[in-house]
Amino acid sequence: MLENKKQIYIKTREKLKAFEYAFTIINWDTETEAPVGALDKRSDVIGVISSMYNDLIFDQEYVDSVNYLFEHIELLDELLQREIYKVKKNLDSTLKLPKELLIEFSVVTAKAGPAWVEAKQNDNFSIFEPHLTRIVEMQKEMITYLETNELKGYDVLLDQYEEGMTVKKYDQFFELLKKELVPLIKEISQCEYSYKLDFANKCYPVEKQKEFAKYIAEVMCFDYTHGLDKESEHPFTSGNGRNDVRLTNHYYEDYFVSSIFSMIHELGHATFDQQVSEKFDDTVLEGCTAMALHESQSRFYENIVGRSYQFWQKHFPKLKEIFQEQLNDVSLEDFYHYVNKAECSLIRTEADELTYPLHIMIRYDLEQALLSGQIEVKDLPTYWNKAYKEYLGIDVPNNKLGVLQDIHWAGGSFGYFPTYALGSAYSAQFYNAMKQNLDIDVAFGAEKLVDVNSWLKENVHQYGDYKKPEDILKDATGEEFNPKYYVEYLVNKYRKLYNLK
Amino acid sequence: MLENKKQIYIKTREKLKAFEYAFTIINWDTETEAPVGALDKRSDVIGVISSMYNDLIFDQEYVDSVNYLFEHIELLDELLQREIYKVKKNLDSTLKLPKELLIEFSVVTAKAGPAWVEAKQNDNFSIFEPHLTRIVEMQKEMITYLETNELKGYDVLLDQYEEGMTVKKYDQFFELLKKELVPLIKEISQCEYSYKLDFANKCYPVEKQKEFAKYIAEVMCFDYTHGLDKESEHPFTSGNGRNDVRLTNHYYEDYFVSSIFSMIHELGHATFDQQVSEKFDDTVLEGCTAMALHESQSRFYENIVGRSYQFWQKHFPKLKEIFQEQLNDVSLEDFYHYVNKAECSLIRTEADELTYPLHIMIRYDLEQALLSGQIEVKDLPTYWNKAYKEYLGIDVPNNKLGVLQDIHWAGGSFGYFPTYALGSAYSAQFYNAMKQNLDIDVAFGAEKLVDVNSWLKENVHQYGDYKKPEDILKDATGEEFNPKYYVEYLVNKYRKLYNLK
Repeated sequence: MLENKKQIYIKTREKLKAFEYAFTIINWDTETEAPVGALDKRSDVIGVISSMYNDLIFDQEYVDSVNYLFEHIELLDELLQREIYKVKKNLDSTLKLPKELLIEFSVVTAKAGPAWVEAKQNDNFSIFEPHLTRIVEMQKEMITYLETNELKGYDVLLDQYEEGMTVKKYDQFFELLKKELVPLIKEISQCEYSYKLDFANKCYPVEKQKEFAKYIAEVMCFDYTHGLDKESEHPFTSGNGRNDVRLTNHYYEDYFVSSIFSMIHELGHATFDQQVSEKFDDTVLEGCTAMALHESQSRFYENIVGRSYQFWQKHFPKLKEIFQEQLNDVSLEDFYHYVNKAECSLIRTEADELTYPLHIMIRYDLEQALLSGQIEVKDLPTYWNKAYKEYLGIDVPNNKLGVLQDIHWAGGSFGYFPTYALGSAYSAQFYNAMKQNLDIDVAFGAEKLVDVNSWLKENVHQYGDYKKPEDILKDATGEEFNPKYYVEYLVNKYRKLYNLK
Repeated sequence: MLENKKQIYIKTREKLKAFEYAFTIINWDTETEAPVGALDKRSDVIGVISSMYNDLIFDQEYVDSVNYLFEHIELLDELLQREIYKVKKNLDSTLKLPKELLIEFSVVTAKAGPAWVEAKQNDNFSIFEPHLTRIVEMQKEMITYLETNELKGYDVLLDQYEEGMTVKKYDQFFELLKKELVPLIKEISQCEYSYKLDFANKCYPVEKQKEFAKYIAEVMCFDYTHGLDKESEHPFTSGNGRNDVRLTNHYYEDYFVSSIFSMIHELGHATFDQQVSEKFDDTVLEGCTAMALHESQSRFYENIVGRSYQFWQKHFPKLKEIFQEQLNDVSLEDFYHYVNKAECSLIRTEADELTYPLHIMIRYDLEQALLSGQIEVKDLPTYWNKAYKEYLGIDVPNNKLGVLQDIHWAGGSFGYFPTYALGSAYSAQFYNAMKQNLDIDVAFGAEKLVDVNSWLKENVHQYGDYKKPEDILKDATGEEFNPKYYVEYLVNKYRKLYNLK
């Protein structure tokens, strides 16, 4: 019986993964090269494939086999135990919701997207307001179906994006950030910064930016036999297991550091994907689905390594060689300080390492307030602007640069934002542990980041989705998630950068 | 009942086409950019998707609906009539074959591919011989299952690649070619050709070749909103309906005309695909599956337009502008004569317009002899070399440059080769008809090939797979397939080029 159920499970998993493979390639094509005139038809085709995929997920024989295996989970090997645990959890979270509710949610979010675009374009929140109101109502309703003994309210959503995270943990995290970072940011905003900064907006030809991006890929040891990089409107990384890992970048002639740090960021995701153990090939564990854990790796490479003095001490000469003309009179010190400048700003995606988590904190607070009914959607712009004034000290001139800037809520993604800040915090905790094993000056300043890659493979990457993020963190760093490392890291780094006592 | 069967048919067609869409995109990715390390896993995934696709094709409810609709075909609208006719024919040709035979054939051809590569690399026919022997045996066996009252023997295979074509028709065609072209080629091979030819192997930078390829795409009015072009090892065109038509090209620095004529050839296929009527969107008729008819269009553009004096009179200045250095002392006359030089050679894919059909004739004769048992696979190299001597007057130095040069037989594709020559012959018959409506000097020498495109859309392209190729030919040219136009075209063109009476 057990064998039989296992066979059904494995056979269906194989089919589901084949569909996912097709989705990934089609999506990659859409984002990187498909002709615009092909996209209308394409969304119809994706609809047909999705419905075949759903038929397979809800196939009674498959559902029964998952339930049976879950009931006899102690009889399975460890790998399959973890797999069934995850599959069962995902399946339940869909099966618990009435089908009509799921369909309505997909209709509502499909309409909310264009409404958000229109509202943003016209700087008119009221166009988006009714859609968001309905989304919040529906999220609340969904939560009532999904609550368990362990997970209540907002926790249900937080756990979907990062297994094991709760309001309680996030609250502690953001409280600490608020306490330590808000005063530091105020202090810094009054400092002088006597470095050359004006070089950054010269013209940097795209071809040369690409040359440096390829150099960075070599430094990070990206394996082009099992991956590739390309251009797209928004940089992203996409994987179909460790043998086919793809990333994109975007190049602006008048803002060249964007492509450098996007490249390092996406290569961070890609390195994670490429370094997962072959043990998990073809299983649902071959790619990490914990958002914050994945983000912790991209941010580790982007910020902790990629904005370190050691890294640029090694690689700035190459950058200068490629951009002789533009960087002629720019020193390593200038460049290092430019890429680490802190400044209170309006747009999350353009924020620096120090102010970034406060953008997230504001969103987290507002999501929680909306879902608990403390505030209403119609008052969101007021609360948004108030928070930006309070924590970042800036006035939001309009909703376009304020509450309408991000697409997430229009897609019904509540609980997603906090993983961004959490990822950075994880990365600092990993950094603290890494320092005990590696000579950071050597590792970050190396010609190739072999030692950094190895440490992260050993402690994080190899596990894919096999271990829970909290266990990875604990095993790698010796303790549970502790936000103090992140705060310490930021405070030390920025006090030093700004010559503060 | 009819409505019900129609619904089942349409619902399944939608799913089948969604799978085909996914196959096309994944294949495009494989050919143009997928990392090599991803391909092993990819073939497994394709296996899984194929098996789901086959389950759908052989689903009894679907097969029943097709059979029912076929039995009541007179009750359907014309479009669906043609669709069901084609689907039923394809279905029968698969259902008639024992499943074990189909599986064995896929195993045998999967092994024959690598054996062919090895045999070719080592110039050792005996490595490939047992595989090809088995393939020929199996083709014979398959024919016995597929024969009908109308189609016997080799005709069964010929019809699969070009609906309506038979040994009788091909025999007449090739007999005429043999009679008219063999003596002409002999005569030409003794002629002097006093034009500059040595410019062609200078170094032509790839970026500049691409610039000219884009120019050609503009001349041919390729619609980039509904298509794209890219690079791959072997040029090809791939479509998912008229809204997403893709072609590739290959660029050699030391052989620049290759990329020019490959581009025109593939754009010919692509123009066909883009000009199919929207009436056939989402049906099985939206792309032409007749090989020779499709090839007739690529060759029409490549040879009849693309190697015409009028075309280069208009576009040679642009070519010279791009390659100032390389073409400095080359005249229009030199260039025109270079791209139309006839020469007996060993390799089919590199053959010129005049000698090309004889390469095909040799393969056709040999296929027929193998399938009828007149010759055995082990003697194939001897017959091959004998034919090359007889018709092209050249000695084949080894099997690598002889019988092992093409991949087709290793893939089990018997009946495919003759469509290549037939395509050229169709194109000459279309040309003869076109001359009666269009001023060719104006149409071929235009800045953009609008008139040529319109004529071909009106008479050929719009129909996709709706009309049988023989009907398209008849309606467009006023008569059935007649090889005399092809022979006339070649004889006139080459007697003039070589100053023969």
